[in-house]
Amino acid sequence: MATPGSSPSPPPPEPQLQAMHALDAQFAALAKSHRHVRCIVKLGGAAITRKEELETVNEPVLAATTLHLKEAMGMPYTSLPMDWSRKDGSSVADLVPNCSGQNLDIPNAFVIVHGAGSYGHFQASKSGVNKGDLKNPLVKAGFVATRISVTKLNQEVVRSLASEGIPAVGVAPFSAGWSTQNKVLKRDNVMEVRRAVDAGFVPVLHGDAVLDNTLGCTILSGDVVVRKLAQVVKPSFVVFLTNVPGVFDRSPEEPGATLLREIVVFEDSSWTIVDPPFGVNNKSGVETTVAAHDTTGGMSTKIAEAAAIAAMGIDVYIVEAGTPHALEALRGHVKNLKSKKTWMGTLIRSALGRRS
Amino acid sequence: MATPGSSPSPPPPEPQLQAMHALDAQFAALAKSHRHVRCIVKLGGAAITRKEELETVNEPVLAATTLHLKEAMGMPYTSLPMDWSRKDGSSVADLVPNCSGQNLDIPNAFVIVHGAGSYGHFQASKSGVNKGDLKNPLVKAGFVATRISVTKLNQEVVRSLASEGIPAVGVAPFSAGWSTQNKVLKRDNVMEVRRAVDAGFVPVLHGDAVLDNTLGCTILSGDVVVRKLAQVVKPSFVVFLTNVPGVFDRSPEEPGATLLREIVVFEDSSWTIVDPPFGVNNKSGVETTVAAHDTTGGMSTKIAEAAAIAAMGIDVYIVEAGTPHALEALRGHVKNLKSKKTWMGTLIRSALGRRS
Repeated sequence: MATPGSSPSPPPPEPQLQAMHALDAQFAALAKSHRHVRCIVKLGGAAITRKEELETVNEPVLAATTLHLKEAMGMPYTSLPMDWSRKDGSSVADLVPNCSGQNLDIPNAFVIVHGAGSYGHFQASKSGVNKGDLKNPLVKAGFVATRISVTKLNQEVVRSLASEGIPAVGVAPFSAGWSTQNKVLKRDNVMEVRRAVDAGFVPVLHGDAVLDNTLGCTILSGDVVVRKLAQVVKPSFVVFLTNVPGVFDRSPEEPGATLLREIVVFEDSSWTIVDPPFGVNNKSGVETTVAAHDTTGGMSTKIAEAAAIAAMGIDVYIVEAGTPHALEALRGHVKNLKSKKTWMGTLIRSALGRRS
Repeated sequence: MATPGSSPSPPPPEPQLQAMHALDAQFAALAKSHRHVRCIVKLGGAAITRKEELETVNEPVLAATTLHLKEAMGMPYTSLPMDWSRKDGSSVADLVPNCSGQNLDIPNAFVIVHGAGSYGHFQASKSGVNKGDLKNPLVKAGFVATRISVTKLNQEVVRSLASEGIPAVGVAPFSAGWSTQNKVLKRDNVMEVRRAVDAGFVPVLHGDAVLDNTLGCTILSGDVVVRKLAQVVKPSFVVFLTNVPGVFDRSPEEPGATLLREIVVFEDSSWTIVDPPFGVNNKSGVETTVAAHDTTGGMSTKIAEAAAIAAMGIDVYIVEAGTPHALEALRGHVKNLKSKKTWMGTLIRSALGRRS
């Protein structure tokens, strides 16, 4: 009944890395107590961009998601526009808003991570940045091209948030020193992200091309960034906003595809579907063994990442961006699925219970 | 004859910062030996943007400077375009170049820093980000707006370089954890910048809005970034590309304004003009006491920063961007000013001699 998730055991760290870890620990000890982050949100690349059109934002979804985030953060309806960049037809005088009486406190602290979608994905896949080898001119050029593209999308996301008064600050993982060793994350800047949260900002990270100690370079996915952030920041919950209504037992387009509403993850990273209750009602076992289908751009990878987060005792919601279900999840209003019969999405939680 | 430079003595560090410095030192000790950086270049905001037009790049100057940098780095004339982002009328197939036989090695490693010019300056000055106080809504909004604007310019600069085959990677100081205490630089990511250089990239940093331990936030100028980089990286020389032909004894527009060709800096940060030889030929003392004129957007600050770098034994050239004189300086071809009578620019050097 349970499909085992993957739980790779990392290689033992080298002496240099051990020393670096010791530094990290010292640094962590130096850090003062931090503001609690209520939610880490992943804006799926497939949701906020038009995947089939190179470097095109899905404007309606991004705009709706921006409003959902603002609402979920508990910010007032009136807002102070923070994107004062040139827009067509605007004069300089129009750009600085009246700030008197504005309250920019964010009752619920959030950290945002976005994927690449039609930004970066093309450049990375055409050049093989993920496999490393910076001596290959195509890989090196692709690294530069990928970074240009993903940072363009980061600008779009930050500007969308800022235009609605969310004090968003872009943080590119490459610039922030995130790096890997043989594709395993080795360095991050989560302490700096917390510092930005403490200062009242909403950091916006993303999947990025990064340096790799062994391979030269690789792609760091937004999902891995979310997992590392969750591990250190320990948010109340994590929301993955995607372009489908959640995790299904087969491709959502197939007849009879069933939305998996609740998945429970055990300490050993294995997991089981508890809603709908396949295991109880269906003795044939056919539907009980289905793995969540992987036609929507790495949904099985997403489940593995989500399961790793849920195993920390942090609830993970996978829900369609821009829908009322997304807003409900971002607000943290779907803790009890039994009382939320109309909510469409997937909750992945730990068998051991919740943190909050 | 000498005009004393400013040499502010920083306050004694707090215990927490002392511990952080110890960590920095440990981290530095962990770092392997690095590739030598030949030159750190500052692209002045007034040179690469049109200062009077909000968020407008000075395209001819940026394009010419890009070619000068490529030449000075010793890269081949044929180039592999690395900006594969969407352009008007291009199809996806057009974007990935033929990479076979391309050599992307950079014989002379460079690090680039740019100012803000008509990007960021307006947003920062209208909101007072420089003075801190994030509780003030205008400052907080201005911080976000400033960062959006300066990262837009960073995109423009990186894309210009990448389109000519320079493997440029943007590094925003805020994202990279640069921060200050009472406006004095306390944290940086120079080690990560070196790592990017070692991997064969050309990091492109910029002036940015950053967090300040005491004030909440402030503006970190590109000139301060250059100084810190120079201190750690110890390049062969530093070039400031500006919108005037160098440092003058009065406003360049005034009749009789004289270009100061060579300034020597002493250990105590005081400095003297050695070419033209005012002190020898002119006994009246009138012209000898003139300070370099400050009508060109902080030229005296620039001299102070340049003098601080020269005091480390690193030659600093201040020269007009996009001119043949800029190319000469970037190539490192003006070490001996006496044999370069036609070169127009200002060399600021240490009285103690050169590093290289």
